[in-house]
Amino acid sequence: MGTLNELFDPDRVAVVGATARAGAVGRAVTSNLLDDFDGETVPVNPNYDEVLGTPCVGSIDEADADVAVVVVPPSIVLDAIEACGEAGVRNVVVITAGFGETGEEGATRETRLAELADEYDLDLVGPNSLGVMSTPSGMNATFGPENALPGGLSFMSQSGAFVTAVLDWANDHGVGFKDVVSLGNKAVLDETDFVEHWGDDDGTDVIIGYLEGIEDGREFIEAARETTEDTPIVAVKSGRTNAGAQAASSHTGTLAGSEKAYEAGLDQAGVIRAESVDELFDAAGILGSQPLPDTDAVAIVTNAGGPGVMATDAVGDADLEMASFSGETTARLRESMPDEANVHNPVDVIGDADIDRFREALEIVAADENVGAALVLAAPTAVIDFDDLADAISEVSDGMAAPVAACLMGGDRTREPKRRLQEEGIPCYFDPARGIESLATLGRYRDIRDREYADPMSFDVDRERAHEVLSAVHDRDDNRLGVEAMALLDAYGIPTPAGEIVDSPERASEVAAGIDGEVVMKIVSPDILHKSDIGGVAVGVADADVADTYEDLITRARNYQPNATLLGVQVQELVDLDDGVETIVGMNRDPQFGPLLMFGLGGIFVEVMEDTTFRVAPVSEPEAREMTEEIRSAPLLRGARGRDPVDVDAVVDTIGRLSQLVTDFPAILELDINPLVALPDADGANAAAVDVRLTVDPEELDRTHD
Amino acid sequence: MGTLNELFDPDRVAVVGATARAGAVGRAVTSNLLDDFDGETVPVNPNYDEVLGTPCVGSIDEADADVAVVVVPPSIVLDAIEACGEAGVRNVVVITAGFGETGEEGATRETRLAELADEYDLDLVGPNSLGVMSTPSGMNATFGPENALPGGLSFMSQSGAFVTAVLDWANDHGVGFKDVVSLGNKAVLDETDFVEHWGDDDGTDVIIGYLEGIEDGREFIEAARETTEDTPIVAVKSGRTNAGAQAASSHTGTLAGSEKAYEAGLDQAGVIRAESVDELFDAAGILGSQPLPDTDAVAIVTNAGGPGVMATDAVGDADLEMASFSGETTARLRESMPDEANVHNPVDVIGDADIDRFREALEIVAADENVGAALVLAAPTAVIDFDDLADAISEVSDGMAAPVAACLMGGDRTREPKRRLQEEGIPCYFDPARGIESLATLGRYRDIRDREYADPMSFDVDRERAHEVLSAVHDRDDNRLGVEAMALLDAYGIPTPAGEIVDSPERASEVAAGIDGEVVMKIVSPDILHKSDIGGVAVGVADADVADTYEDLITRARNYQPNATLLGVQVQELVDLDDGVETIVGMNRDPQFGPLLMFGLGGIFVEVMEDTTFRVAPVSEPEAREMTEEIRSAPLLRGARGRDPVDVDAVVDTIGRLSQLVTDFPAILELDINPLVALPDADGANAAAVDVRLTVDPEELDRTHD
Repeated sequence: MGTLNELFDPDRVAVVGATARAGAVGRAVTSNLLDDFDGETVPVNPNYDEVLGTPCVGSIDEADADVAVVVVPPSIVLDAIEACGEAGVRNVVVITAGFGETGEEGATRETRLAELADEYDLDLVGPNSLGVMSTPSGMNATFGPENALPGGLSFMSQSGAFVTAVLDWANDHGVGFKDVVSLGNKAVLDETDFVEHWGDDDGTDVIIGYLEGIEDGREFIEAARETTEDTPIVAVKSGRTNAGAQAASSHTGTLAGSEKAYEAGLDQAGVIRAESVDELFDAAGILGSQPLPDTDAVAIVTNAGGPGVMATDAVGDADLEMASFSGETTARLRESMPDEANVHNPVDVIGDADIDRFREALEIVAADENVGAALVLAAPTAVIDFDDLADAISEVSDGMAAPVAACLMGGDRTREPKRRLQEEGIPCYFDPARGIESLATLGRYRDIRDREYADPMSFDVDRERAHEVLSAVHDRDDNRLGVEAMALLDAYGIPTPAGEIVDSPERASEVAAGIDGEVVMKIVSPDILHKSDIGGVAVGVADADVADTYEDLITRARNYQPNATLLGVQVQELVDLDDGVETIVGMNRDPQFGPLLMFGLGGIFVEVMEDTTFRVAPVSEPEAREMTEEIRSAPLLRGARGRDPVDVDAVVDTIGRLSQLVTDFPAILELDINPLVALPDADGANAAAVDVRLTVDPEELDRTHD
Repeated sequence: MGTLNELFDPDRVAVVGATARAGAVGRAVTSNLLDDFDGETVPVNPNYDEVLGTPCVGSIDEADADVAVVVVPPSIVLDAIEACGEAGVRNVVVITAGFGETGEEGATRETRLAELADEYDLDLVGPNSLGVMSTPSGMNATFGPENALPGGLSFMSQSGAFVTAVLDWANDHGVGFKDVVSLGNKAVLDETDFVEHWGDDDGTDVIIGYLEGIEDGREFIEAARETTEDTPIVAVKSGRTNAGAQAASSHTGTLAGSEKAYEAGLDQAGVIRAESVDELFDAAGILGSQPLPDTDAVAIVTNAGGPGVMATDAVGDADLEMASFSGETTARLRESMPDEANVHNPVDVIGDADIDRFREALEIVAADENVGAALVLAAPTAVIDFDDLADAISEVSDGMAAPVAACLMGGDRTREPKRRLQEEGIPCYFDPARGIESLATLGRYRDIRDREYADPMSFDVDRERAHEVLSAVHDRDDNRLGVEAMALLDAYGIPTPAGEIVDSPERASEVAAGIDGEVVMKIVSPDILHKSDIGGVAVGVADADVADTYEDLITRARNYQPNATLLGVQVQELVDLDDGVETIVGMNRDPQFGPLLMFGLGGIFVEVMEDTTFRVAPVSEPEAREMTEEIRSAPLLRGARGRDPVDVDAVVDTIGRLSQLVTDFPAILELDINPLVALPDADGANAAAVDVRLTVDPEELDRTHD
């Protein structure tokens, strides 16, 4: 049982603002409901006794409705919603536009609408929605031109036009839906609510979505992870590009989160992402009808050599593999096929193959345990009747545990057999690449379903101390902190080189004396950004020279920038960069997903090669480890080109501790550890955070400290 | 006038092996010709007086034919071809299979067939071909089930099944062709011949191809460059992936050239590459019907916000840009559109837009000089009639210099308007991404058409000296050469550090004395691959230590590998790597395209990051320069991260000289200059080829020396 059952399966639906006036939205909604809805449709309008032949009540409290669809003008929407609340209607669909999408007045109205929903505990869709549909009861509470066919897809869309376009197309292609919701401005109910609901809904086989933004990334990830344990989610997230994000912002006022965050967040959520309408429905179609493959090994059976090669290329493109047949399979094929046939994968039954030969080849291949999925691919010939071939594919597929897709490469003669195959749940295309890509989607969902989500990494840390360090920002003109915040890393157990910020040559010498070997000395000032350029950094200073170097650094800084605030000089253990690999661990805060972690190798790898990877925090240990494995330059951590491998565990540990830190402190807006030097495996801490920069929101800091 | 006019536009076509026997290929061909061919069809068969009601002659010399289509059994094909030659028929289409694709006997037969064609100067298609078609005369000399509709696409395919599949689909979609050829085994005529012919053929607007291999890459590049000056070529090259290449090899026996070579070669040839059937026909369709855009700036006019965002994303994906409207355009839109409309790009005429508003928005946008191309994108609404919209788009488009594509997002109701738009030459899709992608293809072809191909780089070199150096391979057990071949680079003017290979400590000292500063010394032996590992390299040797170091290196080598051939010790100027950037310039020889040049930065960039770029040699100066610009790590050459930029001209020069070397000497099978150290801009040679390895074919070397 889903959480929104009453919304999608009401007994009585009231249309607040129902009318028979031609062209009015209130007429379209009422008429759509009256056409197909199994329950009661109750027009609500004080001006009429009846609407479209149905008795009309004067106010919502007379309607005894489970769902109210509100189509009244914007100026009286709030009153209508309040009336719904008072009347005990808990599900409200606000179709009326003129809210957050229209400017300041509308935004204020939308805020008040959300408050009312909260006050009356309303499950509210919209405003600025096309409406909702649910096919089991025939409920079409939208003002769109078409009702949906019944089926197993449940569909949410942040664009009403996209709903009408998709339904028009789907009705023509025999694609059916369970529920449909046009999300509108998402003032109350958003994508997360519907993902939760449909995850518990037996009638929903696949959830599909068109989204321009996600309201609360973290909540969405949690909900989607649970739902995708047994219900796949496929979504178009538009506004992927800079221009697209701008267009989305002007369309629905969606605040652009970064594409990197969506990419990481949707992947962590287990959402299969589609980039076009074709991809969306190809994926949803096969997920709703075919079993999941045990392996990524695909068998191809074809009567057409060239298209067989194209399909094989598509297997490579889709990160699938060509199945290697068992000896028995090859022997059986050799026995039943003519000499000219190719009995290896892709199996070429050749141009003169009749239905029986096609069927036999498919049966033999399907019996091979090495085959995870099969594609049947046929070009027109004198001997092949596509209707018969469709029957044969259906029959063999009935007995198969592995999924099947078909490509019938032709025009008119393929139309009817295609439709029949699709009705049997076997996806059928012209283009071999699309057939293979749809099989790849099944494997992608199998991997998602099989994921085990570990808990976020958690360490024993000194949160109090971290808060103290962050509080230094209160004494600053701006909200940035630098090496003077190294103690923040210490508080969270992130290894830093020995060292201290000192304010006298004497203390500098004392600190250096306590450190093995030579030291690095750096001027510490929030006002001097490029310390090296002004000679503000000294590397490899011997103990005897430390006091003089202190004076020298201070003098240089004073000369260079007389008004700069000098916090002192950092005296730090010299980390041997020759043996290590410089990495960067960073974080910024995304408006939708919150803290977004970044990992990459230092210097050119991040700056020039843009070789980086992202995760929404908090991350589990396996997620942190993946980050160290999936950058292109990862082999350098594992000891490429004759070098010792570094202690990757220490890097993973640091990512986890940073994840915990930025989750604990929403006040940290940005943070970079650059470099984090990863050192060869040895006893003790094998990573060193040499430098840190962060930006802190002082007000949030005061709010978020327990 | 094309070179193969008689083949595609004959007066009389003979079918050698014509028959009325049901199911026979000879019947299908004869019948197809009799159905639609405007010229004479002459059955040739000594066993019949007539075939399918048409008088039959006993032998080809009685036929007076321009084209002979040969369908006799493989055992008598050669006799039939010889008879064609004797009879003066110059165009022969061999449909019979059982040649190179079937094993040794067939391969021998194919060799003989090619010899006969050469002897009689035949333009021969096949063997193992489905046949040829040409729609102006209605000639269908194939055994396929469908004739083509007339149109401007000329189509060659290395798969007969692909031809039947495509024609079946095309006839259903109203897509027409000028000529069609099934290439078969390409024993005589291949893709290059047809590219040349269609390049000169007025009836061909666009050339499309399905290829599994290219017979002669260099010839193809030259022909395609000329043809694409006014006729676009779009091709699927299958066998792109490893598995696909294997499948292609078992399908047509195509020897796998490397995908890197095809990628580089087809790009250099100006061929637009499609990866699927949809892409192939989307590209061909718009290239054949729409004008080319002046700029990459796209305007979108839509009544659907969400799909507008998707289209905008597609603009970013396709490397196009959103047009910035002039102030006048925005003002005019603001005046004519309602307040809620978005008058910036993408223009949202909003859901209640009628045809007039759509038309007006499109007209205003089309008048803006900043707009290079336009996409009209419509979702179903109560007020939009798609037939009327199609008319409006056609009318506005008639007056536009810029290309237009349309997306009508719906089902059944869009079918007829889509067909009408397509008949008017306006491509129309459901998916916004496909509409944008097709516009992007126009821009891609515009760039190809505008290319100016410069001559290959050519330098004054010492070819004689190079041949001498390469000849050292005759004295070797294997065919590899190392630093002892540095003189090869000198001979072609590629800068190398000062140095020499010496065979005594005295000579070592003399050479070192003639070199400024310290030297590098290396054991030279074809048998010792990893010289550093055995201490066979000494870096930074002072003059005084050179003699001792010589003895030391020899002793180490003798101890390590007593039987190794020692060619001596290389004494080389020490190149300052700190100031330079290590690059790699390499080459290997591709079976189809010949010498393939590679460029990348040294070490991790090539080995770990796989950051490389390729070109078929010989290259022009702009091509060599592009190689230095298109690798991801290119910013490092230009002085990223505060370093001096290196002298890129010196690198370009080296690539050009290597290009000339490997073109002059087909005997060079592989060659790597690793590292080529690129040095900061200064007087003199600012690059240094520090090491070289190559593989030489001794027999080819003897053949190719003038």
